[in-house]
Amino acid sequence: MNLVTFTATGSQHWGVTAPGGVIALSDAFPQWKTLRNVIEAQAIGQVLAAAEGRAITHADGSYRHDIPVPDPEKIICVGVNFPDRNAEYKDGQDAPPNMSLFPRFARSFTGHSAPLIRPPESPQLDYEGEIAVVIGRGGRRIAEDQALSHIAGLTLCNEGTIRDWVRHAKFNVTQGKNWDASGAIGPWLVPFTDPAQIVDVELTTRVNGAVRQSDRTGRMLFPVARQIAYISTFTTLVPGDIIVTGTPTGAGARFDPPVWLCPGDVVEVEVPGIGLLRNGVADE
Amino acid sequence: MNLVTFTATGSQHWGVTAPGGVIALSDAFPQWKTLRNVIEAQAIGQVLAAAEGRAITHADGSYRHDIPVPDPEKIICVGVNFPDRNAEYKDGQDAPPNMSLFPRFARSFTGHSAPLIRPPESPQLDYEGEIAVVIGRGGRRIAEDQALSHIAGLTLCNEGTIRDWVRHAKFNVTQGKNWDASGAIGPWLVPFTDPAQIVDVELTTRVNGAVRQSDRTGRMLFPVARQIAYISTFTTLVPGDIIVTGTPTGAGARFDPPVWLCPGDVVEVEVPGIGLLRNGVADE
Repeated sequence: MNLVTFTATGSQHWGVTAPGGVIALSDAFPQWKTLRNVIEAQAIGQVLAAAEGRAITHADGSYRHDIPVPDPEKIICVGVNFPDRNAEYKDGQDAPPNMSLFPRFARSFTGHSAPLIRPPESPQLDYEGEIAVVIGRGGRRIAEDQALSHIAGLTLCNEGTIRDWVRHAKFNVTQGKNWDASGAIGPWLVPFTDPAQIVDVELTTRVNGAVRQSDRTGRMLFPVARQIAYISTFTTLVPGDIIVTGTPTGAGARFDPPVWLCPGDVVEVEVPGIGLLRNGVADE
Repeated sequence: MNLVTFTATGSQHWGVTAPGGVIALSDAFPQWKTLRNVIEAQAIGQVLAAAEGRAITHADGSYRHDIPVPDPEKIICVGVNFPDRNAEYKDGQDAPPNMSLFPRFARSFTGHSAPLIRPPESPQLDYEGEIAVVIGRGGRRIAEDQALSHIAGLTLCNEGTIRDWVRHAKFNVTQGKNWDASGAIGPWLVPFTDPAQIVDVELTTRVNGAVRQSDRTGRMLFPVARQIAYISTFTTLVPGDIIVTGTPTGAGARFDPPVWLCPGDVVEVEVPGIGLLRNGVADE
């Protein structure tokens, strides 16, 4: 069972996944408005136990997936975190001593199955498949060897990007990375119980069925434990915070000529044990 | 009368300023938990009217200033927005075609009078005096000639920076700009009623009484109306969002050798008609 946030007949609920649908639990636990509150209460185990034996409340097709944690305090993305990605920049520089970080606003992501939105301002909508970790136990200056114990769960991210706006200004990628609904997070939150879920798993991104990105997290320049330790050096991580951990080589920008996403395309991000995040593309 | 968020005996309140103290109004309007909710309800006028004739509830000295809007959905800062600031980068490039933007998390700011926190990881705590605008009416693709009408109020920001961490990685200033309590916003929110409050006002930053930054907003490379129009091109602005509008030349990093803030220093950011934001410096 995984944790899920979804909307049905205009109302947002949270609950757990089950064969054929989802089991809404937000009415059973009104003290926790969102999964962020469940995580803050360290109540994932309690929620999963409460779901045992319950029937599904919403059959597949009768609800819409939302971002698993819809209201995180912060979403921090790690850039250029696979070896070949650094080489792609062709600037002759060695791998950087520290990881590149940029925030995204929650509204720049949509849920599983919803279309990524291509705005009229640019045709350069691009995909980046990634694993996202959701913080369970907060902290500041978290030691690297303790860092994985601060994770509540795992999900997937299509860190969709409007490529020409990444370098629209002199510094910072902010405006290329924060177009409303240009990316996706989901489909659900997989409770984190074992480092093997994250330390060396295969991450694949397909566009219309063709593999575009494929690598293993064991090749990250900055592994997830290091990310949590480094980020928490300067900012206090709190329950529900999301770290988007980096994408392998093979985004559309790396083709010659570049290949951008168009309406009708289907992008899939898949990691065994976490799930499959699938999104179409639509013009705004 | 200005709007203010403050903490007294462990509880956070919002209200308005008055001679000698503040008038708490959050108990009178329990439907609005924070000033963000007041702004969302477009109720600033109602709140100011309700304060008329009331006595102060908390005398100066009996409360602590918090960030005026403690829970914004997003805080976006504009970088390199005064002519001499671009020249400071000495990279031979002309002024950029678009503004540089970077998000800060609310926890990277403290309130008026509280010390800026210098972390043990770096001695390079630096100041940047700025005006911050708080969005009143949200929107997407807001027209530049309508943009100022979307402002609810004005406040001041010391966009405190851990300078060596700004370039800690290959891209993005995220980690230099987001140390907990390394900057400040306040002291209060001045209702925005007239473009003259913002379009060409003097902005001064002093350290221990000596002027370090002084310029006029009329010299901004990207004026506030342009900022609102540009930012809302890619992300929906919502009530309570904060845009930190850029700092003049003269931060400590520009001295030769650089001059960093130390415990005991006092930094003041002042704009006539908005107020004076004063913060000391303390080691963590």
